[in-house]
Amino acid sequence: MKIIRLPAKLAAYALRLKRNQQSIGLVPTMGALHDGHLSLICSARKENDFVCVSIFINPKQFSAREDFKKYPRPLSKDLELCRKAGVDIVFLPEAEDIYPEGFGSFVDLPAISSLLCGKTRPGHFRGVATIVLKLFNITRADNAYFGQKDAQQAVVISRMISDLNLPVKLRVMPIVRCNDGLALSSRNVYLNKQQRQDAVVLYQALCLARCLIDHGLVDTQRLLLRMRQLIAKHQTAKIDYITAVDLNSLKPIKRISQGCLIALAVKFGKTRLIDNIVI
Amino acid sequence: MKIIRLPAKLAAYALRLKRNQQSIGLVPTMGALHDGHLSLICSARKENDFVCVSIFINPKQFSAREDFKKYPRPLSKDLELCRKAGVDIVFLPEAEDIYPEGFGSFVDLPAISSLLCGKTRPGHFRGVATIVLKLFNITRADNAYFGQKDAQQAVVISRMISDLNLPVKLRVMPIVRCNDGLALSSRNVYLNKQQRQDAVVLYQALCLARCLIDHGLVDTQRLLLRMRQLIAKHQTAKIDYITAVDLNSLKPIKRISQGCLIALAVKFGKTRLIDNIVI
Repeated sequence: MKIIRLPAKLAAYALRLKRNQQSIGLVPTMGALHDGHLSLICSARKENDFVCVSIFINPKQFSAREDFKKYPRPLSKDLELCRKAGVDIVFLPEAEDIYPEGFGSFVDLPAISSLLCGKTRPGHFRGVATIVLKLFNITRADNAYFGQKDAQQAVVISRMISDLNLPVKLRVMPIVRCNDGLALSSRNVYLNKQQRQDAVVLYQALCLARCLIDHGLVDTQRLLLRMRQLIAKHQTAKIDYITAVDLNSLKPIKRISQGCLIALAVKFGKTRLIDNIVI
Repeated sequence: MKIIRLPAKLAAYALRLKRNQQSIGLVPTMGALHDGHLSLICSARKENDFVCVSIFINPKQFSAREDFKKYPRPLSKDLELCRKAGVDIVFLPEAEDIYPEGFGSFVDLPAISSLLCGKTRPGHFRGVATIVLKLFNITRADNAYFGQKDAQQAVVISRMISDLNLPVKLRVMPIVRCNDGLALSSRNVYLNKQQRQDAVVLYQALCLARCLIDHGLVDTQRLLLRMRQLIAKHQTAKIDYITAVDLNSLKPIKRISQGCLIALAVKFGKTRLIDNIVI
């Protein structure tokens, strides 16, 4: 497994691979790898000649109030996981090589970036779209792997690929969960014991939603109220949003229909968790 | 010469060319081709296996007040010029194929887009950067050709290429001028006889600047004052800006130094012309 730190070096390497007609699968991560990431790597491994995992905690997608500094950085464990998973290249850049002095170009999707998580995280999706476009260009990826857990991120990137005619195929892989249903996230390590127990309610609320819909409930307001009531039973849980939206536009829908996204963000102490299901 | 209208069709064609190790040179234009464009095409012809000229009057780089509707569209003449110049592919898309319903991704360079022409043309460079990135991706260009006449545009695109790690080489070609010095522009056709005569003062002011600098003038304010005084002699000329800036940051400089850009925009009636020199 090769570790490459300089963007220009990876770009030159990727160019050689492409000239030899090799396909490249990219798994962009911020490290702190868990089984969710490994499922992405596993799919990338099956579908490409070369697999590149990037590990970069992107400062431009954190606001000043957020957890950039304390975000977990278990690098040697991450590298070991990549090695075992058959990764060919780990891209491990420094922030100053990704954003050199004078950097000033951004990819912005103002309409869908201001909804859901964008309401409380201004600038977040601009930071995400910008780094992802850069990674696509550096690695010349044919396929790029993202988790459905970050549903809005997947929608933003899908829209960006389509709008900007990017020559890359997006592969959004299913959410990987703990046995009790909590979606895997690098931020789960922030939870204390009580918060960790209570956090299961996110998945329970989504399961309740699916059950109610299966039994004929179509009124969004009534559905979301039932989910809110369930979550409110847990004192450590503070709802940021619960919403049902169109999967393309991310705009709220009044009546539940097939293909809609039910998404939520809930804070447990300072830790903000997200989860979702597609109906 | 092939004429391709659908982005997906050109993308597939370009992919085949790349797989056959063919290099692609892109000349993005809004049509109304003149000898300036032809010099770009000529360079592209020399330096690439395939030459693609795009003709697309990009609505997103015009504000509501601007001349999108009346912009000249001499299509059959343009195609004939391309054919004679040895162009391989003319890309002639419809606006609805470039910006389909729901389009919402933009490339933004807020710092350098708000200076010089950006002051009176808000959104212009966002529109330019977005369409140029799309064209790069659709055509998979190795080399892209732009004219130095649009100096700020060249700086914006150079910055975008570097910031977003785009795998394309920018070639900025010298300004082509009429015998009397007026820089070629598709907008020159808007000028009446008096305006056309007076417009020569743009180049004369730049020549004056170069002469004064050659003779030791380094104070920017004094230099720009002399240029203003010369232009003010022509009643039809209304100065938008005259400035001396750093060629990378586009920020104003107090003292003239090598590599700086002297740029101006002047209106003749409703027609706004730009010109520049690099010292």
